[in-house]
Amino acid sequence: MQEINVGLIGFGTIGAGVARVLLENREIIQSRLGCPLNLAKIADLDITTDRGVKIPDGILTTDVNEILGNPAIDIVIELIGGYEPARGFVLKALAAGQSVVTANKALLAKHGNELFSAARENEVDFYYEASVGGGIPIIKVMREALAGNRINSVCGILNGTCNYILTRMGSEGADFAEVLSEAQKLGYAEADPTFDIEGIDTAHKLAILTSLAFATPIDYDRIHVEGITSIKPVDFDFAHEFGYKIKLLAIAKQEEGQIEARVHPTMLPESHMLAKIDDVFNAVFVNADALGPSLYYGQGAGMMATASAVVGDLIDIARNRLNGGLRRVPDLSFQESAITPACYRPMQEITTQYYLRFSAYDKTRVLSRIAGILGENEISIASVIQQGRSQTGGTVPIVMQTHKAREANLRQALEVIDELEIIAAPTVVIRMESDL
Amino acid sequence: MQEINVGLIGFGTIGAGVARVLLENREIIQSRLGCPLNLAKIADLDITTDRGVKIPDGILTTDVNEILGNPAIDIVIELIGGYEPARGFVLKALAAGQSVVTANKALLAKHGNELFSAARENEVDFYYEASVGGGIPIIKVMREALAGNRINSVCGILNGTCNYILTRMGSEGADFAEVLSEAQKLGYAEADPTFDIEGIDTAHKLAILTSLAFATPIDYDRIHVEGITSIKPVDFDFAHEFGYKIKLLAIAKQEEGQIEARVHPTMLPESHMLAKIDDVFNAVFVNADALGPSLYYGQGAGMMATASAVVGDLIDIARNRLNGGLRRVPDLSFQESAITPACYRPMQEITTQYYLRFSAYDKTRVLSRIAGILGENEISIASVIQQGRSQTGGTVPIVMQTHKAREANLRQALEVIDELEIIAAPTVVIRMESDL
Repeated sequence: MQEINVGLIGFGTIGAGVARVLLENREIIQSRLGCPLNLAKIADLDITTDRGVKIPDGILTTDVNEILGNPAIDIVIELIGGYEPARGFVLKALAAGQSVVTANKALLAKHGNELFSAARENEVDFYYEASVGGGIPIIKVMREALAGNRINSVCGILNGTCNYILTRMGSEGADFAEVLSEAQKLGYAEADPTFDIEGIDTAHKLAILTSLAFATPIDYDRIHVEGITSIKPVDFDFAHEFGYKIKLLAIAKQEEGQIEARVHPTMLPESHMLAKIDDVFNAVFVNADALGPSLYYGQGAGMMATASAVVGDLIDIARNRLNGGLRRVPDLSFQESAITPACYRPMQEITTQYYLRFSAYDKTRVLSRIAGILGENEISIASVIQQGRSQTGGTVPIVMQTHKAREANLRQALEVIDELEIIAAPTVVIRMESDL
Repeated sequence: MQEINVGLIGFGTIGAGVARVLLENREIIQSRLGCPLNLAKIADLDITTDRGVKIPDGILTTDVNEILGNPAIDIVIELIGGYEPARGFVLKALAAGQSVVTANKALLAKHGNELFSAARENEVDFYYEASVGGGIPIIKVMREALAGNRINSVCGILNGTCNYILTRMGSEGADFAEVLSEAQKLGYAEADPTFDIEGIDTAHKLAILTSLAFATPIDYDRIHVEGITSIKPVDFDFAHEFGYKIKLLAIAKQEEGQIEARVHPTMLPESHMLAKIDDVFNAVFVNADALGPSLYYGQGAGMMATASAVVGDLIDIARNRLNGGLRRVPDLSFQESAITPACYRPMQEITTQYYLRFSAYDKTRVLSRIAGILGENEISIASVIQQGRSQTGGTVPIVMQTHKAREANLRQALEVIDELEIIAAPTVVIRMESDL
């Protein structure tokens, strides 16, 4: 009987999860695939730490070259993360005719195009389901299931740490720093949470989804990124009054030949499916011309959920091998000839509604001064909340929801407003999206 | 350049949608597939009605044999619905070496095993994404993306008509008959809505999902089916008090080697993702051992959404053809040798929580009589709502939420209770599921 042999590089949390799935679900995988999917080798610098998985003798090694280029290994799994040596390992495997599975979004966001080229040239598969949305099969859905559609937009909650923090802040009125430190204790946030809370991890994933949706090379540098650190509990209260939730959203859409790709805190109507995604869960919302709206929800991180995506990729590649050939689906779903550089819309040119929270001194005519400046910049106000009288320091929050306006106009107006003597602190801006 | 030719049988609403996607998205499909996917023939008895799609000359025919067995046609799409002649047409196409795509859940629920055999014997593909959940790619997800997992349960809202009716009843306190007639006016319900409101359509789909999840032949007759016609507006009020929503749920789970497969109105905690699915939308919730919980949401019916699934299947089969071979994925994801008849748990043996609404005459000791009989049958009460005094006819609703109990015990208790002179009408039972 034929067998498919797999080599795993990186025996951390996800690596241990992959090993567990391959070993514990060996029989059920074989009953689907029709042949064994063997975990042949695991390479890691540390092969002594107990990962809670019983690994058969002779599989663990500290020498990555027992996997890379080893003709007995059909598929290489890269789970070490980061740029180097991950990039070098992947390129070496591809050059040796080994297919590769990765969960490494940072690597894809930065070097994806190079790796796709290498996979194409060497006529092997390079799969990356686990890189976006953890266990959610969004890559397969977009590459295959929706292949008859033109994708209009893809939006998502792609970072569990941020979604956990925002959910807790919203439900408990707790402060950002307080919830972050609790999330760290629970293992939902890293010791250094920068990549998560500044939106960088989300943007890595959005760069991949943008390419898949719009047939364009991965271009991380074109993604506009803002994190969640400046949101205050009071913003959740006002959001609630407007009937909105606050989420860190990744948004990619194509309109009039231009792509918008941006990551920022977003107010979403409570009725929107993405507004209903709580805690550490992720979800991706796709708008496609035939299918219309659809949503894919699940655990965006974690040992076993991510392993599910990695093993799904292994089985896919194995089915390709057993059935006549690799390269059944192009890396980004589109043929190479169809992938063309995109025109990205500059952030200044986007139009959306805005939530604005002004910290104003409690003086007469404050509201009319602000409204006047907004009006001069072609920003019209949809509703205003001005509650109570002055708080500490004699300021009152004035909160507005604008109609749709151009980002450049808003920035211009705020430059003037934030310089006024009646304004005590920089205005808080959260974009409100009602048409996603 | 190679081409893939497609023949469509059945030019109704979905057929017109498929034609539209193939014609309007021809370029984007080719840019993914690498070769044209041609709509070569459309067969229907009525080729004069305008379906709102401009069909090129020479494609429409009334003769199905211009498609079936025509060596120039690679893939046949069956969209006529029902059992015959659909079954005969599919068998003829498969026997002639043509791959087949269908949206016909009734056909699959009744004849799926026979059709899968025929596809296997003739070494062609038989795809059916559109048969469950309309445009939601749940078949692909379960056959491929989750292939590394053991599936523990699959639950879903699989009928848009029912979900629309239940959503409206819940939000407006409207009566079943009233909402149904409105749904019919809006085109959300058929003139004869029996298949939908009695749960039969949902059960057809659940029969397919059950096989896919648990590697067992399709067996529609083992699905327990109840519809939504006996639910009253007052039940939504009580559900709300308990913190639950009412949905027509399809439930398939495997525990201790036994399969439960049932369709019935279900109270779900408001926090459950399936409780958040409103209007005509469908969603499938899967619990898998590695992935954990995941949810797939979208339009479960309609011309274009269903067409998206059909065209997704076409592209999948075309990619198989172009890449060396059909039969890349077994029909039910598992190899034939792994598909074994299942042991289904009899409905009497299931255990769940129950919502019970008694219509009792307003007399002393009513509650203790009922509680006594429940207790004798090993059913313990989790909470009771007894509001106000007698309504029309001197009855009061007494509403209870039980702890987990065996269905047989509940039925036994209700047989006694519903015979009591203090009980005015048969007790309303809705199962409450908190662990899905």
